[in-house]
Amino acid sequence: MPNVPEPANIIMVGAGRVAWHLAPALTAGGYSIKAVWSRSLPNAQALAKEVNSVAVEALDFTQLRNALVIISVTDGALPQVVENIKVSENNLVVHTSGSVGMEVLAPLGERIGVFYPLQTFSKEKKVDWQTVPICLEANTAADEGFLKKLAGKLSNKVLTVSSAERSRLHVAAVFACNFSNHMLNIAGKLLQSHSLPTDLLNPLVKETLEKALEISPAAAQTGPARRGDEAVLQKHLHLLADTPGWQDIYKILSQDIQRLAEQS
Amino acid sequence: MPNVPEPANIIMVGAGRVAWHLAPALTAGGYSIKAVWSRSLPNAQALAKEVNSVAVEALDFTQLRNALVIISVTDGALPQVVENIKVSENNLVVHTSGSVGMEVLAPLGERIGVFYPLQTFSKEKKVDWQTVPICLEANTAADEGFLKKLAGKLSNKVLTVSSAERSRLHVAAVFACNFSNHMLNIAGKLLQSHSLPTDLLNPLVKETLEKALEISPAAAQTGPARRGDEAVLQKHLHLLADTPGWQDIYKILSQDIQRLAEQS
Repeated sequence: MPNVPEPANIIMVGAGRVAWHLAPALTAGGYSIKAVWSRSLPNAQALAKEVNSVAVEALDFTQLRNALVIISVTDGALPQVVENIKVSENNLVVHTSGSVGMEVLAPLGERIGVFYPLQTFSKEKKVDWQTVPICLEANTAADEGFLKKLAGKLSNKVLTVSSAERSRLHVAAVFACNFSNHMLNIAGKLLQSHSLPTDLLNPLVKETLEKALEISPAAAQTGPARRGDEAVLQKHLHLLADTPGWQDIYKILSQDIQRLAEQS
Repeated sequence: MPNVPEPANIIMVGAGRVAWHLAPALTAGGYSIKAVWSRSLPNAQALAKEVNSVAVEALDFTQLRNALVIISVTDGALPQVVENIKVSENNLVVHTSGSVGMEVLAPLGERIGVFYPLQTFSKEKKVDWQTVPICLEANTAADEGFLKKLAGKLSNKVLTVSSAERSRLHVAAVFACNFSNHMLNIAGKLLQSHSLPTDLLNPLVKETLEKALEISPAAAQTGPARRGDEAVLQKHLHLLADTPGWQDIYKILSQDIQRLAEQS
């Protein structure tokens, strides 16, 4: 690969939640967004206005050289955007997805990469970028170095994560976020079915999870399974008799907690 | 039951974490702790010093009348304390356990109850009592009224919860706290086994769970199972092939998330 200059311009493809948080952070970091594209032109126009840029209708960026093209669309829309986008050969193209491999960008050339901010973004809520881990991947050391520099302007936690590692990270995130959220959901429904306020456990949940993040979940684990309190476990399984699905979940998770406790 | 005066004194039985937080909160609320007992006399002395009280060695409180006796010991130690304690007939005796029925106190007379602060207490960390739900139960309306008044001095969230409801609450708490913590534990171990930093997901976990408590876990649920993304689900199950226990957990929880999503 020839020695290529660092990207001087940024093109934002997508105007979703990640783009809405990322583009302003980049301009605040001193970078200039040259153009914004979105499947919805009004969305592109709104974001372009926000970051002092212009909205474009065509996915053709061949006229822009030395650009970093950030594709920030849903996982499902990625292949279609890759199929239709036209970029100059010396542009670096990255996507921002946590669960899609870098190779999805292979049709666009050799200068490809991933710029994955490991956070959930809401429309209304400001993000503290300093604390957001940014997981990078690139095909060449030079591009990785450039992405590192760029990410370092946003966050204190920049790390290189391969596509294979990112898959593992995604599985772990499903447990840590989606499944823990589902546990709260089940708890809320159990409270509701016994006419108890669904927010009754919120202060306890907050404190418990703060403690887990502070001293590690292994050290913070409490409860009947951790104590090996068979009497309470049996009582709880009996109380869950009318929701056999949750009884099964109670059983399998208690066994796993006991298994890990025995190992430690 | 004869008309009995409200308890004027408090006796603290136990000097564990709950007692260490509860006793100072009660004295701050204007109540006086007459005596502190603990299986460990030095612990009783330390807590007594903290709340300007005296430590006693014997579990005999027959000389104190019109007292509220708060038994705050581990669930396992409760029956033995109940067996050995001697209280005046006109004393109100409560325990602070979330998972033990009020009837464990029946040998001590008719004036019994439960004063259960629904929070986890750490030695080092100050508790914001105003936000701690206090679940009360008593045998008579008069005693319930007194406990309500007392709890109201500590917290804004005081509610009457029967022993049966408290059992259900405890099952829900296992899901919301113990099981969600276990999900974080599994996630950390998955990261570790792939040489990724175990705290990498912490900012995402924090944001996700704040959102769940804010807008409800049902509304906050995301992820491949919620989206019905079979391709990602299959990929994840494949990636978990070397940890069959967690593969089973992934499967059963994803199915339950999909089941609830279809109901809503």
